[in-house]
Amino acid sequence: MSIQFERITLIGIGLIGSSLAYDIRRLGLAKEIVVSTRSAATLKRAEELKLGDRYLATSAEAVENADLVIVSVPVGASESVAKEIAPHLKAGAIVTDVGSTKASVIQQMQPHMPPHVHFIPGHPLAGTEKSGPDAGFPGLFKGRWCIFTPLPDTDEDALARLRAFWEAVGSRVDVMDPAHHDKVLAIVSHLPHIIAYNIVGTAEDLETVTESEVIKYSASGFRDFTRLAASDPTMWRDICLHNKDAILEMLARFSEDLSSLQRAIRWGEGDKIFDLFSRTRDIRRSIVEAGQDTDAADFGRHALDAKQS
Amino acid sequence: MSIQFERITLIGIGLIGSSLAYDIRRLGLAKEIVVSTRSAATLKRAEELKLGDRYLATSAEAVENADLVIVSVPVGASESVAKEIAPHLKAGAIVTDVGSTKASVIQQMQPHMPPHVHFIPGHPLAGTEKSGPDAGFPGLFKGRWCIFTPLPDTDEDALARLRAFWEAVGSRVDVMDPAHHDKVLAIVSHLPHIIAYNIVGTAEDLETVTESEVIKYSASGFRDFTRLAASDPTMWRDICLHNKDAILEMLARFSEDLSSLQRAIRWGEGDKIFDLFSRTRDIRRSIVEAGQDTDAADFGRHALDAKQS
Repeated sequence: MSIQFERITLIGIGLIGSSLAYDIRRLGLAKEIVVSTRSAATLKRAEELKLGDRYLATSAEAVENADLVIVSVPVGASESVAKEIAPHLKAGAIVTDVGSTKASVIQQMQPHMPPHVHFIPGHPLAGTEKSGPDAGFPGLFKGRWCIFTPLPDTDEDALARLRAFWEAVGSRVDVMDPAHHDKVLAIVSHLPHIIAYNIVGTAEDLETVTESEVIKYSASGFRDFTRLAASDPTMWRDICLHNKDAILEMLARFSEDLSSLQRAIRWGEGDKIFDLFSRTRDIRRSIVEAGQDTDAADFGRHALDAKQS
Repeated sequence: MSIQFERITLIGIGLIGSSLAYDIRRLGLAKEIVVSTRSAATLKRAEELKLGDRYLATSAEAVENADLVIVSVPVGASESVAKEIAPHLKAGAIVTDVGSTKASVIQQMQPHMPPHVHFIPGHPLAGTEKSGPDAGFPGLFKGRWCIFTPLPDTDEDALARLRAFWEAVGSRVDVMDPAHHDKVLAIVSHLPHIIAYNIVGTAEDLETVTESEVIKYSASGFRDFTRLAASDPTMWRDICLHNKDAILEMLARFSEDLSSLQRAIRWGEGDKIFDLFSRTRDIRRSIVEAGQDTDAADFGRHALDAKQS
């Protein structure tokens, strides 16, 4: 792989930022990696992990002379980062982000971007339930989608360069309208996480079933929800606040459907329940066929168990 | 392992029945395994897989002279099986089941059991989203809980023999009151599955996001729900119909909590959202510590990916 950028600056060095750092280094995509984060402890940890070439507490200083700036912070922090870096960006620099909501990030960042930089909002659909620089690893983006939601007047050349970068780390790139991105993510990602957080809360509050029973018998289904619900609370609070409309729309539909299913259970409408429970199998099959999941039963946990014993 | 029973009869040969067959054979727990199922195609498949020593379409004939009868059918079929086998059970035989709801199974089976047999309801908390005899595998029950909900006058010796059987296949055995079992399972298993089925239905019905988009971007959270929602629809319809009260109670609480979260999102109550999203992490940690799940990020999918490439 050849060098694509002289200097790449990573603002925020959590799971996404640190994984990018590993990939940029191992693939030789930049001559220099500059790491910046507000938290002194995180910056120190990034240095211990040797994620960059230089480590700076202020993003203003960090973006100086950078050809590519990647902002990987909770979406609620987008505006303050934009304000801070804007006066220090060099002409022709590409500024992108990795936020899970796009209309809000554009609204927060775009007004501050000087006309001589290329601001291209992006969202790699990659991650795990872990967070922080220790959670990052090379290859996180391999085979995963990265969605760009470029503004109408985006420079084609800058777009092509950013696409080449994400493709170099193994992503497949899609282009989408920001509002549509937010609706798609509301159903495939935001709603599942919100529901997972919610059911874990419900379980914790029960009086008739103890928390230790919930933990002990969690393998029957509940544990899969707890994995999603172990995700970074700041990141997910910000997503809820910044993709409100799409999330509320999906939540309303979900609740409506759940009330209908609840009624079918109450009145013993077996056929109606069976019909719903049958049609969902096809979607699962399509997801496995599309390579978005493994067909290994129970996520292949049994295969892992067998190897360990 | 020494022989525990002369003849074990398996009524129903799906994921649980076939996995038991493999374990009984490899551990030498019975001299003879008799397999019975109503479906001619399934019975034929069981024979092709060499799951038993004899294969019978009628359960009445199959239970003759059996020392242990294990009923592994959707819970809604419990009564008809009980009626059919009752007159043919030998004195001293142990009859057990593997159903996910216990009060209903007892209500359906107990009245038909002759006084000279030991009826001990049971529920191994083991399985995957797959079903049918091809889904079974040796070792499914290793390290998994099996819950007995014995009736008050259960013979201690029979209970000890059944416990030894489940421990031989690797299970840990717990004893519980049937009503309490049904409440515990409603929250750790039934509610998660119902919600997973429901969200997959909601996603399929959207007009603004296409089904192919849902499939394509499902790795962001949605796909984990589709795995649960790929479970056997007959089995899960029956669970909904036969653990109605506990399920409706948990559903009501879940919906109440979700309405409260929805309101917090609508009114931008960041602190309230953050609090909920924070406290759920502890439960996840406890589940991993209790050995009920692996700590591998994203279920270790990335580790599997890396091995494949």
